[in-house]
Amino acid sequence: MAEQQLLSTLQAVNHSASFNRWAGFKVTHAAAGESELRMDWRKDDMGQYAGYLHAGMIGAMLDTACGYAAATVAGRVLASHFSVNCLSPAVGHSFVARGRVVKAGRKQVFANAELFAEQENGELTLVATGNAILVPVEGSLNP
Amino acid sequence: MAEQQLLSTLQAVNHSASFNRWAGFKVTHAAAGESELRMDWRKDDMGQYAGYLHAGMIGAMLDTACGYAAATVAGRVLASHFSVNCLSPAVGHSFVARGRVVKAGRKQVFANAELFAEQENGELTLVATGNAILVPVEGSLNP
Amino acid sequence: MAEQQLLSTLQAVNHSASFNRWAGFKVTHAAAGESELRMDWRKDDMGQYAGYLHAGMIGAMLDTACGYAAATVAGRVLASHFSVNCLSPAVGHSFVARGRVVKAGRKQVFANAELFAEQENGELTLVATGNAILVPVEGSLNP
Amino acid sequence: MAEQQLLSTLQAVNHSASFNRWAGFKVTHAAAGESELRMDWRKDDMGQYAGYLHAGMIGAMLDTACGYAAATVAGRVLASHFSVNCLSPAVGHSFVARGRVVKAGRKQVFANAELFAEQENGELTLVATGNAILVPVEGSLNP
Repeated sequence: MAEQQLLSTLQAVNHSASFNRWAGFKVTHAAAGESELRMDWRKDDMGQYAGYLHAGMIGAMLDTACGYAAATVAGRVLASHFSVNCLSPAVGHSFVARGRVVKAGRKQVFANAELFAEQENGELTLVATGNAILVPVEGSLNP
Repeated sequence: MAEQQLLSTLQAVNHSASFNRWAGFKVTHAAAGESELRMDWRKDDMGQYAGYLHAGMIGAMLDTACGYAAATVAGRVLASHFSVNCLSPAVGHSFVARGRVVKAGRKQVFANAELFAEQENGELTLVATGNAILVPVEGSLNP
Repeated sequence: MAEQQLLSTLQAVNHSASFNRWAGFKVTHAAAGESELRMDWRKDDMGQYAGYLHAGMIGAMLDTACGYAAATVAGRVLASHFSVNCLSPAVGHSFVARGRVVKAGRKQVFANAELFAEQENGELTLVATGNAILVPVEGSLNP
Repeated sequence: MAEQQLLSTLQAVNHSASFNRWAGFKVTHAAAGESELRMDWRKDDMGQYAGYLHAGMIGAMLDTACGYAAATVAGRVLASHFSVNCLSPAVGHSFVARGRVVKAGRKQVFANAELFAEQENGELTLVATGNAILVPVEGSLNP
């Protein structure tokens, strides 16, 4: 698939998921084995007790970026495992997750992702990293 | 702390996190090294593309249950690592996460959790498991 | 398969692996979804720099116990992912790993394991826990 | 510390661990936040049942490379968690693990590593990846 087509397909997949619509996930890049996802911070429904981005949202962005990177090479996939390292308090104006396929096998796709907090001046800080294992499933990627 | 006091403290912590309020997390049990968390399913803002509970929400419940279990023995903690195994499609009327401390050290607390989908008839199915490492931090647990 | 047959099959598999022979792994229990593995401590070739059991050996025992537990229900498998939590210094006269299948799917088997250090008086201390994902592969379990 | 001094310190640490001597681990590179470890394949005591490098040895190399990378910036450390993704059968004449620090905090150091199989012609294939969390401990790095 051409990159522009990959991007619009992933944007349609992204729009088909109610959680992703609620979170305001935007797919901003797709290429073979790569994805980028952005989200604006909202303090009123995304915070943990200290006011940082909730670990669940960190995991959601990392897992989704891994899943989209995998989908660029393997089509429809489901996450079977993911892990998250929380490196620094996730504080920012918005967040950017970049996913990358490490190895695409027939039964399992291994991917990893990095999550950056973006400040108002555009500066990016690495706040978390993640790994995921995705299992290819039957069916078309198109929603 | 007595169990009733642990429970009400964790309920107050839970209420202080905007994501937890949005998700409707309820702390339903707390004891030394143990926690239970419940959440009702909402298809309009919690689903992934196939309509199951989003992996991010699965991770959020498991990580939160681990964090609350850790808090019962270690006070204020931050998650530094968590991992999630998605065993079965997370489909249910509501979800129950049960956390348990495996080892509480001075620098790190190891905990794990199970996530069950509950059907309308009350039947529980194990849909995911998770592990977390929590780091004790300064300050009181009370929000 | 009857438990006695499972046990002798796993013992033959265990004997077919050169690392397992070197380490002196012994399969001491097998049942549907369960395994137990033992190993005697040897300070001259199993230690890390502080003289405890090397993390690689901890991982080897946990991963092997998970693999054998998976093999009891899924036949021939290969580990695709495993993780290890080192809870306490692994110091003992011998070590016992107990594996258990959490969920056996067609494409992936999820298992976990606990590693205990055994003192000369027979007392067991939990020193590490692990999780593994095993992929069923073609071929007979018999070596 | 100068790189040459880092390297000779890590080589001394490496030599102080009986498992590492048995495995024939060689530290071949060290810089701030980086390490490289090599090991020759021995079929007679390093194989799993199918004759590939045992997952325990894969984990041992990845965990050790992460630990040495962490030691270059944090001194004496102990692994508290590590995870391993087995991407391809680990078959080679020798193996090379490269570790890298992702984030060095006061309480925890996050590192990752890649394991390559080397063929007789010197070609490297990525066969596994790993992540580790290391905890700084009291005492000098020098054995």
